[in-house]
Amino acid sequence: MPKRISMSVVKRLPRYYRYLGGLLDRGVMRISSKELSDLMDITASQIRQDFNNFGCFGQQGYGYNVEMLMGAIGGILGLSRVYNLVIIGAGHLGQALVSNSRFSKRGFRFIGMFDVDPSLIGKEVSGLTIMHMDGLGAFLAANEADIAVFTLPGENAQEVFDAVSASGVKGVWNFSNLDLKSTGDIKVQSEHLTDSLMTLSYMLNE
Amino acid sequence: MPKRISMSVVKRLPRYYRYLGGLLDRGVMRISSKELSDLMDITASQIRQDFNNFGCFGQQGYGYNVEMLMGAIGGILGLSRVYNLVIIGAGHLGQALVSNSRFSKRGFRFIGMFDVDPSLIGKEVSGLTIMHMDGLGAFLAANEADIAVFTLPGENAQEVFDAVSASGVKGVWNFSNLDLKSTGDIKVQSEHLTDSLMTLSYMLNE
Repeated sequence: MPKRISMSVVKRLPRYYRYLGGLLDRGVMRISSKELSDLMDITASQIRQDFNNFGCFGQQGYGYNVEMLMGAIGGILGLSRVYNLVIIGAGHLGQALVSNSRFSKRGFRFIGMFDVDPSLIGKEVSGLTIMHMDGLGAFLAANEADIAVFTLPGENAQEVFDAVSASGVKGVWNFSNLDLKSTGDIKVQSEHLTDSLMTLSYMLNE
Repeated sequence: MPKRISMSVVKRLPRYYRYLGGLLDRGVMRISSKELSDLMDITASQIRQDFNNFGCFGQQGYGYNVEMLMGAIGGILGLSRVYNLVIIGAGHLGQALVSNSRFSKRGFRFIGMFDVDPSLIGKEVSGLTIMHMDGLGAFLAANEADIAVFTLPGENAQEVFDAVSASGVKGVWNFSNLDLKSTGDIKVQSEHLTDSLMTLSYMLNE
């Protein structure tokens, strides 16, 4: 990677990646910044500037090679490898994530699923058997997990965060309503679904 | 509302609202911008600027009244009323959302749930009986729904979007992987979970 890419550009990359994947699925092999601009509702100059950032320059009269561009963006996003994920909290949301094939298609592989609810322990979801939280430490010691997905209530999140931080997990995908902070050892990406719904309700009243 | 609030401020409001709710739950009735800053990892001057935007000025030596501030922010976010939501796509994610009490606590009430899968139709989830999509039009004609939640596959999303747009629904909370666009008649808030996970994988490789 020639230089450090700013986080504002990084945040747009998954969307580019998604659109380019859609183009490839439809057999589109090349695209101009103008065509991509019409499709994505981003200005063509913004698109060119974003892609220049990581050294992808379109060719005059040809545009961008969709496959190369997607490969370059995937590389920056770290999608050329497989990630092992454990789900902590096997309620409806945890089960929804495990059952979503979009993640495994991108290399995110669920290897374990944990809960404390006796009615869930032992249940099988998408090929995984829900285990008791008591076994989480031993599981993480025996299996290399990259990402812990927090689909547990906020009141338990901090305690579990401290435990997984000490276990070698490198990232937390946080759906609990607790704000967890990235540290040097562990990165956090939070999804606050209620916040998102409130933003929508604001727009409805604008 | 004295003046139009910029979208960058609006996007921070749900998070303020969430933190203030947490303070109230713990019996904290007033807070300084400095204390809130330590808690939320936002600078105190940013906090004061944000609150000044909608006319909430803290008092020297007292700080902000937590309840008033929360009321003001809730008012801006349109949380003083109840919203009726229909879920379109009753798979794991749809069921997860319907079962999450955090939404109803904030006035988001699920009134209907639809799918096309015969094995789901008639099943009851959190007091709602899953109905067939064929009945959606009649349901929306008979019941006032404010928000349609799209937990259906992307390939069906555009068609359903056109149908609900014509039915008087004012907002779409979109979990499908299709980018739907807000129009004059209907506002869209999209959650692309795969994008979020890719942002985390970027951070892990930084």
